[in-house]
Amino acid sequence: MSPKSKRVEILSIGTELLLGNILNTNAQWIAEQLSQLGLNHFRQSTVGDNCDRIIKAIQEISKRSNLLITTGGLGPTPDDLTTEAIAKSFNVSLFERPHLWDEIKQKLSNSKLQENSSSLRKQCLFPKNAQIINNPKGTAPGMIWEPIRGFTILTFPGVPSEMKSMWEETAFEFIKNKFSDGYSFFSNTLRFSGIGESSVAEKINDLLNLENPTVAPYANLGEVKLRITARAKNDLEAKNIIKPVKAKLKKKFSKFIFGEDYDTLPSVLIKELARRNQTIVFAESCTGGLLSSSITSISGSSQVFKGSIISYSNELKNELLNISEDKLKKYGAVSEEVCEAMAINVKEKLGADWAIATSGIAGPNGGSEEKPVGLVYISISGPNKHITNNKKLFNSTRNRIEIQTLSVNVCLNSLRLILLSNSK
Amino acid sequence: MSPKSKRVEILSIGTELLLGNILNTNAQWIAEQLSQLGLNHFRQSTVGDNCDRIIKAIQEISKRSNLLITTGGLGPTPDDLTTEAIAKSFNVSLFERPHLWDEIKQKLSNSKLQENSSSLRKQCLFPKNAQIINNPKGTAPGMIWEPIRGFTILTFPGVPSEMKSMWEETAFEFIKNKFSDGYSFFSNTLRFSGIGESSVAEKINDLLNLENPTVAPYANLGEVKLRITARAKNDLEAKNIIKPVKAKLKKKFSKFIFGEDYDTLPSVLIKELARRNQTIVFAESCTGGLLSSSITSISGSSQVFKGSIISYSNELKNELLNISEDKLKKYGAVSEEVCEAMAINVKEKLGADWAIATSGIAGPNGGSEEKPVGLVYISISGPNKHITNNKKLFNSTRNRIEIQTLSVNVCLNSLRLILLSNSK
Repeated sequence: MSPKSKRVEILSIGTELLLGNILNTNAQWIAEQLSQLGLNHFRQSTVGDNCDRIIKAIQEISKRSNLLITTGGLGPTPDDLTTEAIAKSFNVSLFERPHLWDEIKQKLSNSKLQENSSSLRKQCLFPKNAQIINNPKGTAPGMIWEPIRGFTILTFPGVPSEMKSMWEETAFEFIKNKFSDGYSFFSNTLRFSGIGESSVAEKINDLLNLENPTVAPYANLGEVKLRITARAKNDLEAKNIIKPVKAKLKKKFSKFIFGEDYDTLPSVLIKELARRNQTIVFAESCTGGLLSSSITSISGSSQVFKGSIISYSNELKNELLNISEDKLKKYGAVSEEVCEAMAINVKEKLGADWAIATSGIAGPNGGSEEKPVGLVYISISGPNKHITNNKKLFNSTRNRIEIQTLSVNVCLNSLRLILLSNSK
Repeated sequence: MSPKSKRVEILSIGTELLLGNILNTNAQWIAEQLSQLGLNHFRQSTVGDNCDRIIKAIQEISKRSNLLITTGGLGPTPDDLTTEAIAKSFNVSLFERPHLWDEIKQKLSNSKLQENSSSLRKQCLFPKNAQIINNPKGTAPGMIWEPIRGFTILTFPGVPSEMKSMWEETAFEFIKNKFSDGYSFFSNTLRFSGIGESSVAEKINDLLNLENPTVAPYANLGEVKLRITARAKNDLEAKNIIKPVKAKLKKKFSKFIFGEDYDTLPSVLIKELARRNQTIVFAESCTGGLLSSSITSISGSSQVFKGSIISYSNELKNELLNISEDKLKKYGAVSEEVCEAMAINVKEKLGADWAIATSGIAGPNGGSEEKPVGLVYISISGPNKHITNNKKLFNSTRNRIEIQTLSVNVCLNSLRLILLSNSK
């Protein structure tokens, strides 16, 4: 069977999804996994915890697809109906697997779970010829079952961590061997900063129609990525397919590309500062700790990050950062003069090679005609008393957290560009 | 027609959803809106930008439902196929609405968009008797169309901000008038801290089977909520239905409930400190700015928050917080002794009524047998030299960001409980 004819679907089961109580992150994660396997995943559905509706959905899918991945409804409560509904869809009975019951009891005694264990017994019921997917992180196993020729179902619990570890431990290899034709999709993502999605897309019109590799732009708040995806038999072949397109993009966008794949602006900066054996400190006002937090969220940040002063009040700008009351009065806390002094003074006081300071109006209140919401000053002080000042005016429709996040992005990207331009 | 027989579905259209490139936040948002309208929303589907597959999905849905909400595929590019596919599903032609074209040109000249305007002309094509849904935030209008008796389609673009403003401006009222029977669902959420989901669920077994109001538990990292939902003709009636259940829950869980609906731990704390006219400062080590950031993400935080010292290195713990080298050497930076001294000293140095200090091992590296990853000390120093020390050992399977987030939660909740116990 060619991979084109292997039709795959995802069915998410759970009333909480229909009520909008939780976001369906499982469907996205599985979709991405299937893409990597080169599988033709063409439809996703969501139904509630209702036996008849689950049966209806499964019967429909069995008529048009070869592989169905379900999530949710494997737990012990009365509204966990997935296995039962799947069996009923094909008029098959469920049988208890005694070794599973032993395993569950074992897991319970280890984890001191207080659950009513009799209800867990339901989780040991499976169709006779189903293969069990072990659940290393919970009590509910899944199954791999081919109820009719040419149609296979894999079931997973709705808890994301359990689903993912079951996928990685068992399902990935099974699907790869049984449903993939040996070709897989390999992606290499280039990450951009300091340039908007439309500007990136405009410049690569010719690449957006390529077939192998494909090039696709994605945008998040303050970040753009281009994902280059190759269909190939192995990593090496994929890299060779991706290589010329990647080289072209790197040449075209040069400094706008800050990294690849799992790189982030903080991780790239920490790596570069560590390579230079340099340290960094911050004086934060409007970003209120978010800049420090973006760095300390990365393991290994203590190699380069010494600490920060968050001087939210003018009093502390004066006391901790020695910004004179005169200066604060004359220019205001949100000014290039004060921000620059914050950067210079925090660098000296905390004894680092680099310092970044922020001062601005994150809103929604506190703006004026002269200094509107979205106005942010960023100063970077480096070795040799070199200072870079940056004034940003973010769109006032941005909310507080967006303005803080975008400000942090500008801080990190500005320092990255400074480091690039005086490479060591 | 009774509301029970009004069957509603959501169809999300976009290949990027099937590739797992983006999370389907639209479906969740619409699902929540439909719940509020008391509508029986029973299935969600996602298909790619493929005309035949969109047609197939729409024809299926038209046979089993009364109302279909679609998102995505209304843009100007060749893979935006939604309106065309809907028309083809019912063998109907599209006609240009000249006034829409004028509107789009107007919008473009205002926003200086650089798009190829001829491709935008496609967005003016609609079935003859469709009603237009104005798009206040973009160029692509949607439609309300009843292609066959008893089946209505509403279309929205995939851009969340555009979809939401169209929903709020036009769709909500339309759906309420045409599809709701006058009953709506009203929710009131109680928010918990310091107690796990299973402990909450165990204590309210009797309430989980109520029908009006319903009570449903949800859990996020470090937080549990119970949503009480009433079906009623108006707010007042709903409040009266919710009242006795809410009173029962408040009595049962008392201090574990920190707020309702849109309250967060930081927002509740800021409000309480502002009421007391008291200020707060932090000395952060392992939380690295996240505690400060959680407070400064809230508008109005400057009323109570003066600033923080983030002393990531031991050098700065010594220099900025006067923790003696002896103490650091004797007990280690991650110890109750050092954390307590950090809280006392930062409170004095920065001059506030309250101070919180954190010191711990967020991992994944840096743990030892004696001080494993997940060990976090939290000290709170208050008026009258009162000190509260807290030692936490988070599960070592938690990742770095989870340990930091949970630590911040404990900081905020511990202070909340202290404030509660010495009410002013």
